[in-house]
Amino acid sequence: MERVYGIHTVSALLARAPQRVRRVCLLRGRTDQRVAALETLAREAGRALERVDAAALRSMVGEVNHQGVVAEIDALPLLTEDGLYALLATAKDPLLLALDGVQDPHNLGACLRTADACGALAVIVPRDRAASLNAGARKVAAGAAETTPVVTVTNLSRTLGVVKDAGLWTVGADASAPVSAAGVDLTGPRCLVLGAEGSGLRELTRRNCDWLVRLPNLGAVESLNVSVAAGMLLYEAVRQRDGALSPTI
Amino acid sequence: MERVYGIHTVSALLARAPQRVRRVCLLRGRTDQRVAALETLAREAGRALERVDAAALRSMVGEVNHQGVVAEIDALPLLTEDGLYALLATAKDPLLLALDGVQDPHNLGACLRTADACGALAVIVPRDRAASLNAGARKVAAGAAETTPVVTVTNLSRTLGVVKDAGLWTVGADASAPVSAAGVDLTGPRCLVLGAEGSGLRELTRRNCDWLVRLPNLGAVESLNVSVAAGMLLYEAVRQRDGALSPTI
Repeated sequence: MERVYGIHTVSALLARAPQRVRRVCLLRGRTDQRVAALETLAREAGRALERVDAAALRSMVGEVNHQGVVAEIDALPLLTEDGLYALLATAKDPLLLALDGVQDPHNLGACLRTADACGALAVIVPRDRAASLNAGARKVAAGAAETTPVVTVTNLSRTLGVVKDAGLWTVGADASAPVSAAGVDLTGPRCLVLGAEGSGLRELTRRNCDWLVRLPNLGAVESLNVSVAAGMLLYEAVRQRDGALSPTI
Repeated sequence: MERVYGIHTVSALLARAPQRVRRVCLLRGRTDQRVAALETLAREAGRALERVDAAALRSMVGEVNHQGVVAEIDALPLLTEDGLYALLATAKDPLLLALDGVQDPHNLGACLRTADACGALAVIVPRDRAASLNAGARKVAAGAAETTPVVTVTNLSRTLGVVKDAGLWTVGADASAPVSAAGVDLTGPRCLVLGAEGSGLRELTRRNCDWLVRLPNLGAVESLNVSVAAGMLLYEAVRQRDGALSPTI
């Protein structure tokens, strides 16, 4: 069992995975419109709902900005490699993020948070040489670890091969790529691939990318932070999927 | 005097601010194409150039990935508020980043690094309630603190007013904005404004924004990390300025 809090987070869980929500606790007296909408969501999904006092909420999640809303949820089930492939077979235009050699748990957590915000289905990390989803990474992920699965794979190159066979294009970020991220169609099934800061994509990973795309590099710094680079690439995918291809204002 | 290293960083400084480069030290025996190009840049700019051994480079910058290139440069001159306004009067389509209430030096450093990569003229932070550019922030900025100025201002709202008078549109990121970042023209003179994580833009700052724009928020997490949000907004500005408004592949 996990506890999550905040109006947006609990509402998102009620909307996307209501069966995982065991109980919603609302601060007694909180009755604004967003809380009312959340209450309706919970009732419609047949979830247990309680009004409690501030001390009860504090005892559940500590001194955080819970906005008067805490939910007890089932932990996110572990998604295996095979489970991921099964998911790809049914998902519409799935968006995946693969991290090749990101060793800092802080960066993994930051990428997970952004992947969640951008609607990615899962984040793929190689088992042997990558950051693990430890407590620090979960904290930085700001709740995303409870909603967006991290899939640990034995051999990233092989996984990218399977993902390609499932119909996804693999798109890697590379500082020396001739085409910019906006120059590649990211609207269909796609797996975005980020390498480690400094060293970038490994050769074997690079060869498994259908496209290599460039991110902004106009300044004096050698490279972007990997979570910022992931954010830009995921943003570009969301932008294209929104259909907002040109400024309207 | 500061020391910077890496082929990209030293080349960028030689190209953009050669007068600040006092001396370039190259590893004896390093003769690939990128180093040769850097050497040409240095010679054309009339900069002192030396071939030294690995121990000398190590004694200058320590155990870092210097790629055989270290430069001694004059520190970035302090840019005052008035200095910024003078700069705005002559810059073509200046891009500024203003951080409203970003208190974590790590986040300031990360934003600075991205601002540099996206060609921003400067980063604006309020004096009283913001992170300072300390050693930690400089380290996270990965060299950007040596090339992209941080301007500390007394009153951010007043500064945004002056910036608007100088012809820049102010564009703030706001989770509840009806228009997406791609829906606003970011190609002209612009000042992008980011608020603190969680609380967002302050009311007074918000009222000083010509446009409020939305960033991806499809998931369960309450908000994006501020440096990732800054990265997305800066990316969108670069994308529009590149003229790459639609996928070509």
